[in-house]
Amino acid sequence: MTHSLSIRVYYEDTDMAGVVYHANFLRFLERGRSEAVRALGIDQAAMRAGGLVFVVHRVEADYLRPARYDDTLVVETRFARVRGASLHASQRVLRGGEELLRAEVGLACMSVDGGPQRIPADIRAALAAAAA
Amino acid sequence: MTHSLSIRVYYEDTDMAGVVYHANFLRFLERGRSEAVRALGIDQAAMRAGGLVFVVHRVEADYLRPARYDDTLVVETRFARVRGASLHASQRVLRGGEELLRAEVGLACMSVDGGPQRIPADIRAALAAAAA
Amino acid sequence: MTHSLSIRVYYEDTDMAGVVYHANFLRFLERGRSEAVRALGIDQAAMRAGGLVFVVHRVEADYLRPARYDDTLVVETRFARVRGASLHASQRVLRGGEELLRAEVGLACMSVDGGPQRIPADIRAALAAAAA
Amino acid sequence: MTHSLSIRVYYEDTDMAGVVYHANFLRFLERGRSEAVRALGIDQAAMRAGGLVFVVHRVEADYLRPARYDDTLVVETRFARVRGASLHASQRVLRGGEELLRAEVGLACMSVDGGPQRIPADIRAALAAAAA
Repeated sequence: MTHSLSIRVYYEDTDMAGVVYHANFLRFLERGRSEAVRALGIDQAAMRAGGLVFVVHRVEADYLRPARYDDTLVVETRFARVRGASLHASQRVLRGGEELLRAEVGLACMSVDGGPQRIPADIRAALAAAAA
Repeated sequence: MTHSLSIRVYYEDTDMAGVVYHANFLRFLERGRSEAVRALGIDQAAMRAGGLVFVVHRVEADYLRPARYDDTLVVETRFARVRGASLHASQRVLRGGEELLRAEVGLACMSVDGGPQRIPADIRAALAAAAA
Repeated sequence: MTHSLSIRVYYEDTDMAGVVYHANFLRFLERGRSEAVRALGIDQAAMRAGGLVFVVHRVEADYLRPARYDDTLVVETRFARVRGASLHASQRVLRGGEELLRAEVGLACMSVDGGPQRIPADIRAALAAAAA
Repeated sequence: MTHSLSIRVYYEDTDMAGVVYHANFLRFLERGRSEAVRALGIDQAAMRAGGLVFVVHRVEADYLRPARYDDTLVVETRFARVRGASLHASQRVLRGGEELLRAEVGLACMSVDGGPQRIPADIRAALAAAAA
């Protein structure tokens, strides 16, 4: 199951090269994951209130084409490899049919105090169903 | 007493107009206040661990001249009007002798849970001495 | 005429106090102005290709209440005082009926090379009509 | 040759999990590369004025430990594989002796109008000498 989120590029996203600053694509990816997770009925605010967060432990990103001010982008998110305390997201950023960025993101469930934690069973089930 | 912090402008700070994005000046100001506070022996990390934070409740900023990539800027910070639960910072951003930005920033002491709080006496004394 | 833009708060917007970092509200305001301008048929990408940009020369912002992760905010934008080379925006950020931020923003039309420029007549007319 | 840059963590860098937001590490890496390049006598502002920029085309980052407010971090940068139109940076972020992040970054020389470009000979020579 692939989730799609539409994003507009604003001035804040660009740099003096006239394109989206490379680090800002990671924010776009995180917005995509946040909305994909929400679409599965997972409430990250409640998770955090309960002391758990998902943290990024690995990013692999290929920048294929630049994005520009005023572009409407689509962030695609597909979850995979849902394990006891970690999962993986395969993501792309597109403009029209064009691929601008491809990324593989490794995520871990952590307590807000720092240690790794098992993903709560209901959340894991929802992610696993989406990953199937 | 005026505190000065030197800051370099990086790609991340610029936008497609080729200058520092206006919101990023507020980050520079906050770096200046953080270092000015540290120079007074106030430990904001310990404050927060104790449940207190300074929050911005008002900003007045005049943008006089643009800053550009690679510029070395100086952020000047002067505290004033230190009261029971609030204080004020008068700040400037300069490049060489040129004034780029002038700002008046109102700050309040808050508990991390949200309500206004009195500034601890030792911290208030240090700020008041600097403001004198 | 008041323009409204809906914005979701993501992780990237928050800071360690658990709320939206104060400088990021300025980004939200700029997104609001960008969409308000677009709704008037003004194409800022074309303006910039033609060598003109709107720049912020003054911000006055009152932070009334914090915004939090996952909040859905509304940015309201109303243009005023449209002159030959400058204009003004009165803006608010709301959550439900609650006012979180009130801001007055002064904008100037500039050439990308730096000097002040007259706002092109058709763009000025569109802004003036919205401000009326 | 490994270049080291010291960086302080400010409020702007953190997120509501109380740690440095993952995308902001990419900014730290870019500050490290900017200063490493400057230390080699390469003037990126002049390069850009001449129509050339280095752009990131690939990032591989492993997040090993979180960074927190007030931390003093060191960004290490080592250039490698300097070719006609591209180069590579191996980077680490450390706190004291602890490794927080390891990254491999692929960079390409591009014209500001978008196409790949050869790295000017003197700049290539400086990078190659540092990479040796």
